[in-house]
Amino acid sequence: MKTLFVTEKIKTLLPQIESFVETELFPLEISEYLTGNFSKVAGILDQKRQLVKAAGLWGLQHDLTLCEFGQVSEALGKSPFGHYAFGCQAPDIGNMELLHKFASNPLKVKYLQPLMDGAIRSCFAMTEPEFAGSNPVNLGTTAVREGDEYVINGHKWFTTGADGAAFAVVMAVTNPDALPHQRASQIIVPTDAKGFKRVRNISIMGDSGDSWASHSELRFENVRVPVENRIGAEGAGFVLAQERLGPGRIHHCMRWIGGSERIFDIMCRRAASRDMGDGTKLGDKQIIQLWIAESRIAIDSARLMVLHCAHGIDIHGAAAMRQQISQIKVICADLLMRIVDHAIQIHGAMGMTDDVILSFYYRHERAARIVDGTDEVHKVSLARAILKSYGLKVKK
Amino acid sequence: MKTLFVTEKIKTLLPQIESFVETELFPLEISEYLTGNFSKVAGILDQKRQLVKAAGLWGLQHDLTLCEFGQVSEALGKSPFGHYAFGCQAPDIGNMELLHKFASNPLKVKYLQPLMDGAIRSCFAMTEPEFAGSNPVNLGTTAVREGDEYVINGHKWFTTGADGAAFAVVMAVTNPDALPHQRASQIIVPTDAKGFKRVRNISIMGDSGDSWASHSELRFENVRVPVENRIGAEGAGFVLAQERLGPGRIHHCMRWIGGSERIFDIMCRRAASRDMGDGTKLGDKQIIQLWIAESRIAIDSARLMVLHCAHGIDIHGAAAMRQQISQIKVICADLLMRIVDHAIQIHGAMGMTDDVILSFYYRHERAARIVDGTDEVHKVSLARAILKSYGLKVKK
Amino acid sequence: MKTLFVTEKIKTLLPQIESFVETELFPLEISEYLTGNFSKVAGILDQKRQLVKAAGLWGLQHDLTLCEFGQVSEALGKSPFGHYAFGCQAPDIGNMELLHKFASNPLKVKYLQPLMDGAIRSCFAMTEPEFAGSNPVNLGTTAVREGDEYVINGHKWFTTGADGAAFAVVMAVTNPDALPHQRASQIIVPTDAKGFKRVRNISIMGDSGDSWASHSELRFENVRVPVENRIGAEGAGFVLAQERLGPGRIHHCMRWIGGSERIFDIMCRRAASRDMGDGTKLGDKQIIQLWIAESRIAIDSARLMVLHCAHGIDIHGAAAMRQQISQIKVICADLLMRIVDHAIQIHGAMGMTDDVILSFYYRHERAARIVDGTDEVHKVSLARAILKSYGLKVKK
Amino acid sequence: MKTLFVTEKIKTLLPQIESFVETELFPLEISEYLTGNFSKVAGILDQKRQLVKAAGLWGLQHDLTLCEFGQVSEALGKSPFGHYAFGCQAPDIGNMELLHKFASNPLKVKYLQPLMDGAIRSCFAMTEPEFAGSNPVNLGTTAVREGDEYVINGHKWFTTGADGAAFAVVMAVTNPDALPHQRASQIIVPTDAKGFKRVRNISIMGDSGDSWASHSELRFENVRVPVENRIGAEGAGFVLAQERLGPGRIHHCMRWIGGSERIFDIMCRRAASRDMGDGTKLGDKQIIQLWIAESRIAIDSARLMVLHCAHGIDIHGAAAMRQQISQIKVICADLLMRIVDHAIQIHGAMGMTDDVILSFYYRHERAARIVDGTDEVHKVSLARAILKSYGLKVKK
Repeated sequence: MKTLFVTEKIKTLLPQIESFVETELFPLEISEYLTGNFSKVAGILDQKRQLVKAAGLWGLQHDLTLCEFGQVSEALGKSPFGHYAFGCQAPDIGNMELLHKFASNPLKVKYLQPLMDGAIRSCFAMTEPEFAGSNPVNLGTTAVREGDEYVINGHKWFTTGADGAAFAVVMAVTNPDALPHQRASQIIVPTDAKGFKRVRNISIMGDSGDSWASHSELRFENVRVPVENRIGAEGAGFVLAQERLGPGRIHHCMRWIGGSERIFDIMCRRAASRDMGDGTKLGDKQIIQLWIAESRIAIDSARLMVLHCAHGIDIHGAAAMRQQISQIKVICADLLMRIVDHAIQIHGAMGMTDDVILSFYYRHERAARIVDGTDEVHKVSLARAILKSYGLKVKK
Repeated sequence: MKTLFVTEKIKTLLPQIESFVETELFPLEISEYLTGNFSKVAGILDQKRQLVKAAGLWGLQHDLTLCEFGQVSEALGKSPFGHYAFGCQAPDIGNMELLHKFASNPLKVKYLQPLMDGAIRSCFAMTEPEFAGSNPVNLGTTAVREGDEYVINGHKWFTTGADGAAFAVVMAVTNPDALPHQRASQIIVPTDAKGFKRVRNISIMGDSGDSWASHSELRFENVRVPVENRIGAEGAGFVLAQERLGPGRIHHCMRWIGGSERIFDIMCRRAASRDMGDGTKLGDKQIIQLWIAESRIAIDSARLMVLHCAHGIDIHGAAAMRQQISQIKVICADLLMRIVDHAIQIHGAMGMTDDVILSFYYRHERAARIVDGTDEVHKVSLARAILKSYGLKVKK
Repeated sequence: MKTLFVTEKIKTLLPQIESFVETELFPLEISEYLTGNFSKVAGILDQKRQLVKAAGLWGLQHDLTLCEFGQVSEALGKSPFGHYAFGCQAPDIGNMELLHKFASNPLKVKYLQPLMDGAIRSCFAMTEPEFAGSNPVNLGTTAVREGDEYVINGHKWFTTGADGAAFAVVMAVTNPDALPHQRASQIIVPTDAKGFKRVRNISIMGDSGDSWASHSELRFENVRVPVENRIGAEGAGFVLAQERLGPGRIHHCMRWIGGSERIFDIMCRRAASRDMGDGTKLGDKQIIQLWIAESRIAIDSARLMVLHCAHGIDIHGAAAMRQQISQIKVICADLLMRIVDHAIQIHGAMGMTDDVILSFYYRHERAARIVDGTDEVHKVSLARAILKSYGLKVKK
Repeated sequence: MKTLFVTEKIKTLLPQIESFVETELFPLEISEYLTGNFSKVAGILDQKRQLVKAAGLWGLQHDLTLCEFGQVSEALGKSPFGHYAFGCQAPDIGNMELLHKFASNPLKVKYLQPLMDGAIRSCFAMTEPEFAGSNPVNLGTTAVREGDEYVINGHKWFTTGADGAAFAVVMAVTNPDALPHQRASQIIVPTDAKGFKRVRNISIMGDSGDSWASHSELRFENVRVPVENRIGAEGAGFVLAQERLGPGRIHHCMRWIGGSERIFDIMCRRAASRDMGDGTKLGDKQIIQLWIAESRIAIDSARLMVLHCAHGIDIHGAAAMRQQISQIKVICADLLMRIVDHAIQIHGAMGMTDDVILSFYYRHERAARIVDGTDEVHKVSLARAILKSYGLKVKK
């Protein structure tokens, strides 16, 4: 589905990217890399990164509008290795944007530049096991100022990519007596700081993973960092997190749409070729046709919603598009999981094996409906905003 | 939700139309008009038509792009009386377009002009009870040429608005030995022609209706009309029907979206105001919030899909957008019925009464999922087109 | 599906009833009776009642266990006229049971006997427009004692069958200062009492109906009835209502299952016979097969749940089965509406016409998901009862 | 939910079993055992087996009706280790029943007895990668008779528990010229036979597993076994497979219901205890309540359907209950996956971790909707059987 949002720039870039992903990355989708730890494939991916740089396709996010980069993100999302190979993987892409916009020059030199080069990785430590994710202002991690330093104590988990990261951006309460949304700050903590403890890579869906593809539990025990490591103003942690959220949502959603297109392609190939032993193919069966039609419709309408939202952010800013940003999260996470489910069913027993990539998405992207706010949190929040405009005195 | 598709023209027109619909048409939504026959309200609507003409808002379809008129259609769809009052009601709007594009000048003078003026009404006789609607090339009605006349025999039903129409556009087989899609022609038959029999207004969902708001069963018994009454070439019936289909689909879909927005508004008002007797409002309940959020998302994405499709038709023509045209039919019909269902449930017992407009939509728009091809026919057809591109040898 | 619950008694009765329904009642399903007012068919049904009495099949509810009568109710539910013809139509059946168990002898003589004979009809006035149905203890209607009389004032609606009823059982607050569940009493009010006003038969889904098949709005303006007209103790209104509820729920649910079986049969007939014009029948299409399979499974499991619940009530009483009673309400109402929807879709345009009975169910049984507590109210109440057992301090 | 199907025997047994499962098996649900290979926990489970034997609870399937054992299977299904610990794990339980009913005495002595003692394990080699599972009569594996031996050649996969099994029961074509359902035989092949090759344990959902908890790809290359190793008559392979199917389906379905109950319990505990930081618990939220209610209803009705079916098989045999056996497969597989999905969502990020058991079920039981016939195959087959009774000439 060609959309309105294809610019001249994108018209040139996309075929190159798509071709690279198909030629260089699809062949990496072997059982060993899909079920093993990321470190097994990391070396090969670093070679691919050189090719990407040589082709002038590295770090495209810095030169494109959000709506344009969204389309790149879809193309990259067709492979689980796409964003990493092109230097725009979460959470680094979010940290880069954050540092780019709000960090001091010394921080930029020290942290942003090597991050943009792909020389180091980073992580973003926000979620805490003790507090419900539905209300992110509840935080137990504190950063108490002592002289020129913050002394950080706290407990985080689901910190993606902490294993092997050079630094963490940590959300910590610096102003406990301020209004709820003005209590926290974002502070850079090098992972080799004294008192920074990576407790474990959490075992998720059967694997604890490693390296970039891991989600750690962390403890901060009297970790001391210079006050200069703070990004933005004291107490601005949530404002910055919101800034990060809009574009990040677009990236994720378009990645999920890329994944959905990939799976759609796999399931259509299967449907068109699988012989049923009675002179028909699997794709001749109406139930399969139903799933294919519904998937097609769902993908096309999700893409339109996300790009329309991205375009809106480009023009009006993320704050103006807050409701749309909630909407696309719900749509795309649901889309991906439904389409994976159909594709597995279409493949029968083979769909569960690691001989095809479906089970990888099934396990690793179930998170889509939970992280960054569950489907339900977003729906409730959207409805409340609507009902408020009808005069409902919305309860907290 | 403001979309990209709002042009300058539309930006001026829409507020006028919305205001007219709200001020002049909403007050007509009384039980008497909603449950009674159309003839009860027809007189009042004719007065409204004068106001519309005076305001320069009559027959806007002739001056707008499809994408622009789609947005008008949404605004009109907020009232069941909108399209009629503004002179762009189906099936007349389709017949006008057909005549405009393909009819000879004498036919235009005789039939198109009074139709455009709202002086007469027309109908489109295609569906036949003996043949499955899923395959429209199966037709039993014949038009046999005898000299300068066609002699028409056949049986039609679900001919909307035949009651009171001045003429019917009849789909009839003129070339029985041609290829399936080249057998039929479209022929104008005045309803006072000898042998034209309106058997009955079919009782649907409890009402047989009358006038414009009716669906008739017709018989053609040796009806003779001059050969000049044919629209377009002999055998071109299906080509013309396809031409009609694309824009018609946009009109319908946007009308359904208008209906959905109307119902959404009604259900939000209820949710925000209904006291639950425990210090909360209905809208404080999460289940209600869920429905409101899901409805909002569904409406917004449906609108985007339809307008994007309309825009595509404006630029590339309907043929290029065939798959999208199938998609939007499925999306919008489903949308409308789901949102009506939620709204009824939110209103409790009152939702079933004719004190509110919900039951009107529930009964009269259930047809949306059936007419012009059921949801299932469109899905299967869409999937087959996709699978064909994957090499599946699609069976008929 | 033969279940475990077929007793010897039922094995004999059911075939007679089924045969009667098919032979005597199915032929009444003509458009005139399905779309017209009940009074059109009432006379014929009174003749059928004589046949039922002659066959010894009248008022079977009095001689059967609840589980047995449930099975009768299913058989009767296959026709919209079944329960009326056999003298066990709601709300009379509930009133009969109520009077039988709790009324004084004089009340029994005066009201119960003619009710059992089918000589008069009755109604049950509980729901009020001003209060959310989700919490039935909120009542505005009062019965103030003055000497030997109650003076009743209030506003009711959705009082089924009030039009033509000889008396109403009215739920009214007699003890405003008692605990919420002990405030109301049930009182018999003759419909010819001074101050009893039937405001209107509410227009529902396009029809205001009449006679037994109507739902009235009522006003009680200083209506005076003797204190002896109270059924049961003062303040026992809700206890009695609960007593009524369990068996009533079984009756309704089995009636809906009967309706579902009827519709299932209609849709299978259609699927097996409708020619698709390509050498296949509609029933060869997998989408149709999907619906048929899912409908079959849904009906069979619903029946098992309801009869198992009925059996439990027979043995342990309704109070012990409260959660199950909520469950079956949700299951059966949903079942019926989903199956009607499929059947309409399978019939295409014809499914919406009154040439088949589907639209009758579609319009008249949408209420199933609302009356006696919406689906949502039952689900929430069920979940709360469960979570209470897990230690959740359930909020009112 | 207490059902009608609790016999005296079961009333005594169930509490013992439930207590054992809770005390001895729940503590084994640690991340190491849930994500690691089965061999890690096998030793401990062998100790538990001794306890089970000592308690007189070993191999209960041999002494109970199917309906009774179904209830045992539910209790065991609450732990992933239940069936193994009690000596009634698939596929051994099916092989035991098969050998018990149809094997010669020498085969019983050699294979059945040690299987019943838990001294050896076995597997059942039926599915082949080259043929669609929807039509099991398509088989490529052949057993050609040469003198007193069969020479077996073929390719199988998804042979559960082949790793470490002492023998396989192999479905192979012995009579290629017979009618489709009479071509295959079931033959015992020791896994140390020459030419028996276990190609690999297939990696499924990220793990290739080992020992009992694995699914192998096998090749048979000129494997020779004595003709006496055949179970039952030549060509009776499918008849025997059908015999095996009915009870096997009950076992699986009740195991899935056990799993569903376990997950239901976990999600209710979470809902009742998780603090939302606003004075409410997670279980106070209506969306959660909705899921809990719907899950409760779904479990209760699934159980009733399965036990009713098991009871029917006990009385009438599996052949008479074929449609019901299809029904329960669809119901229970769907139930389990839906409830796991809700439970994960309710747990948020933690739901995806291996700190709770949910992800284990999510990954390992996705197969439920595929193995032994996909949901769709069963639905289509059920619908065809129904439509056949309506006169549809069902196509193969």
